[in-house]
Amino acid sequence: MVQFVGVDGVRKLVAAQGVEAFLTGLIPYVEADYARWERFDKVARPASHTPFGVIELMPASDAELYAFKFVNGHPFNPARGFQTVTAFGALATVHNGYPVLVSEMTLLTAFRTAATSAMAAKYLARPDSVVMAMIGAGSQAEFQALGIRQTTGVNRLRVYDTDARAMDKVRRNLEPFGFDVILADSAAQAMSGADIITTCTADKANATVLTADMVSAGMHLNAIGGDCPGKTELDPAILDRADVFVEFTPQTRIEGEIQQKPDDFPVTELWQVVAGRAAGRSSAAQVTVFDSVGFAIEDFSVLRYVYDVVQGTGIARDIDLVAAPDDPKDLFSLLPVPAPVG
Amino acid sequence: MVQFVGVDGVRKLVAAQGVEAFLTGLIPYVEADYARWERFDKVARPASHTPFGVIELMPASDAELYAFKFVNGHPFNPARGFQTVTAFGALATVHNGYPVLVSEMTLLTAFRTAATSAMAAKYLARPDSVVMAMIGAGSQAEFQALGIRQTTGVNRLRVYDTDARAMDKVRRNLEPFGFDVILADSAAQAMSGADIITTCTADKANATVLTADMVSAGMHLNAIGGDCPGKTELDPAILDRADVFVEFTPQTRIEGEIQQKPDDFPVTELWQVVAGRAAGRSSAAQVTVFDSVGFAIEDFSVLRYVYDVVQGTGIARDIDLVAAPDDPKDLFSLLPVPAPVG
Repeated sequence: MVQFVGVDGVRKLVAAQGVEAFLTGLIPYVEADYARWERFDKVARPASHTPFGVIELMPASDAELYAFKFVNGHPFNPARGFQTVTAFGALATVHNGYPVLVSEMTLLTAFRTAATSAMAAKYLARPDSVVMAMIGAGSQAEFQALGIRQTTGVNRLRVYDTDARAMDKVRRNLEPFGFDVILADSAAQAMSGADIITTCTADKANATVLTADMVSAGMHLNAIGGDCPGKTELDPAILDRADVFVEFTPQTRIEGEIQQKPDDFPVTELWQVVAGRAAGRSSAAQVTVFDSVGFAIEDFSVLRYVYDVVQGTGIARDIDLVAAPDDPKDLFSLLPVPAPVG
Repeated sequence: MVQFVGVDGVRKLVAAQGVEAFLTGLIPYVEADYARWERFDKVARPASHTPFGVIELMPASDAELYAFKFVNGHPFNPARGFQTVTAFGALATVHNGYPVLVSEMTLLTAFRTAATSAMAAKYLARPDSVVMAMIGAGSQAEFQALGIRQTTGVNRLRVYDTDARAMDKVRRNLEPFGFDVILADSAAQAMSGADIITTCTADKANATVLTADMVSAGMHLNAIGGDCPGKTELDPAILDRADVFVEFTPQTRIEGEIQQKPDDFPVTELWQVVAGRAAGRSSAAQVTVFDSVGFAIEDFSVLRYVYDVVQGTGIARDIDLVAAPDDPKDLFSLLPVPAPVG
């Protein structure tokens, strides 16, 4: 039997631990997998683009486990009552190729993206950061704020979105966690004086959510909303004055903010910083950008985490996803067919 | 909610219809999708190879539906009590990217592979065929025989496998369906006088299961066991004297029997025959080979079929795979968290 953790299963796991403890537990899984980044089989993720949006499969594996995520990105979905991004995925054992876990990943993607931003902020934000700004108040915003607070201690949050209702939602959701939330009138106002800025807008366009004049010395930017060809959030001039960190360079050159730059634009892969192979922030005045597009290893990490924490809880349901005849060569015996002779 | 059809669900669908009717219903789905082959988005399938075997993701989509299959191929699995091939997959609606069906596909892969061979035999075998040979008596054998009988009427079956128990299994499983089954002492004996030959062995090696001297004028061969780099079944000399039909040329040149041949070795894509764009069998003496490696459109077809036939049966179970908050921008509201303020 394969374990299934649906939306209700993730809710129960979060309820059992608390949302902050769930994130606290996840961040070291992401960090451990970043630290051993080179041991993963990194293959291209096939994407199917249509006028509606994109559907992607994101596989990653090490010597023991194989994970993949099915994820869509449909920018016009919210106006039609659907999520922009939904996802589910599975974990399998490499030695026999059998799946062991199928899970919803809409919530888990928000969690792993937050855990990754939180890890990036730990390595790249100024240690004396006190204010964060969230540009975009959609599905990911609260997860991002909670994650970043875990690794940086930053509790003061400025929010800007073109949708005032979405800003109110973030305030409503985060004030119970003790955040000091201020709603801004513009991205520039939200950013003024902020130390850590996260852009998580969902336009399928080369939008300039941030312009270079909004960026001050010492800022760290998590740019997570620009994540496919033709979809960016930052004025390219920001990239020129920043040190840019990425997940997996070949993918980010196609999907990230640096798609606006030549192929030799210098970047550092974040795993190298985590593994102690490259410097993260090197001065208080430096501007750092984590040009995040989402990488399959982060999905691997969160599936591995859920698989570990769900054991013994009774939260996972069994689903009969693997046909297992007594004789492996007799698959046909599983079918209800005329009685065998003799 | 997403519909889930597990192993038990497929059993119940087959029980409701009978295994032959289930195949009879499936073949036109595969054929219809072959006939509109050009309308599919055909992307590479990412494969993760290890010393144990391979895990692949196989996506395919048209303007309305997106399908993918997770499938492993682990040649040493049967000796360890596992299936060589297990699979599961999902179907999603393109307009919003939401999954609508998750299904086991170990059984469904055997069914769709049989339906494809059956369709190939319909177009490529001699109409006066009376004997089929099955080289390899593993998991797929019974499905192949039943499928091919559906489209050709051939009821006389010769079976050869290096494993005598596996041959007995095929006889035991197929005699209740009225097959006239003869167990052969060698591949050559099984093939002698046969009109339609299917090779479905599972060695992960460049095996020569069939040599050129076993092949007579007028034979049609379904070569389905050679399906990844380094894994072939046919003496390349057989290919020289045959007209070779494939699924998707770029994939087959890497994974099929023709990996033993130069990149300009002439082939015809089977969909062109189905669509009336190319000739199938053109003479009674011609040797035809369907060099089948399995293509994602066939998985699309079987998922589409299951999705259609399961409606209204009560067989599918609901699984909560898609997070659907009332406000699409308020994913966080799904979590059990401190009560919002005000």
